[in-house]
Amino acid sequence: MIRRVQLATSTGEELDAIGRLLHDFNAEYGEDTPGPQVLAARIAELLGDGDTEVVVAGDPPEGLAVLRLRKSIWTPHLECYLAELYVVPDRRGKGTGRAIMEVAIALARERGADWMDLGTASSDIPARRLYERLGFDNHEGGPGGPVQLVYERQL
Amino acid sequence: MIRRVQLATSTGEELDAIGRLLHDFNAEYGEDTPGPQVLAARIAELLGDGDTEVVVAGDPPEGLAVLRLRKSIWTPHLECYLAELYVVPDRRGKGTGRAIMEVAIALARERGADWMDLGTASSDIPARRLYERLGFDNHEGGPGGPVQLVYERQL
Repeated sequence: MIRRVQLATSTGEELDAIGRLLHDFNAEYGEDTPGPQVLAARIAELLGDGDTEVVVAGDPPEGLAVLRLRKSIWTPHLECYLAELYVVPDRRGKGTGRAIMEVAIALARERGADWMDLGTASSDIPARRLYERLGFDNHEGGPGGPVQLVYERQL
Repeated sequence: MIRRVQLATSTGEELDAIGRLLHDFNAEYGEDTPGPQVLAARIAELLGDGDTEVVVAGDPPEGLAVLRLRKSIWTPHLECYLAELYVVPDRRGKGTGRAIMEVAIALARERGADWMDLGTASSDIPARRLYERLGFDNHEGGPGGPVQLVYERQL
């Protein structure tokens, strides 16, 4: 069961599970995490602000996507950033990520976005294959252009 | 003269110049653009919304950075996306981009951001060198990790 999480109808258990999934995601990749409870509260805040959407699979959730929306510079619509996509290790390779992404893309369109972008590790071949099958491209200006890189720094 | 553009004090001429720079940027890279006037109006709208900052160099402007800010998922602060960095062709190689970025980074910190990220073409060696000199890294989890790629698609 793939579904959009809405603050008005979401249970505390569901938000707690989302916090745990996000925590497990960062822990798996060795990134800092403030812990499941802080993340659950933060996701609730962001859902309340209206610029964030969460799509989950399973009950209790075993995978999720987090979308961030904002007005675009280049078009009169919104742009959507896929901030997170995670499926618990023992549910991978079963189409869960793809099913989440299909709902996430439909939801982004419904919210008024006309572009979606994301960053992923060059070494994460299953994720790259999924994004490419879904029509994402990692070249500036489309296929044939130079590869686009993410750069980041702490401030 | 590098400065933050503020809607309350910006002149129509300055906003028009920003719209032209953004238009020229996309035109130079063969990307779609809605035209200078639409872009000037959109930047004014985004500045008014408060989630966008523009830093310009020169009078009239000959280079700019556009920053987008929003609440972070992983920290209690903001995250900052460098949406655009552009210097007109005949002013490149003179330190203008670096000077703009230094002001942009200071402004992002002042606004409460603790991370900045951006996407750039792997083939744009001057831009990559600039970002790397400013402390940006294009590897997941920091130096030594896998290269991080931007994927995008129209919706």
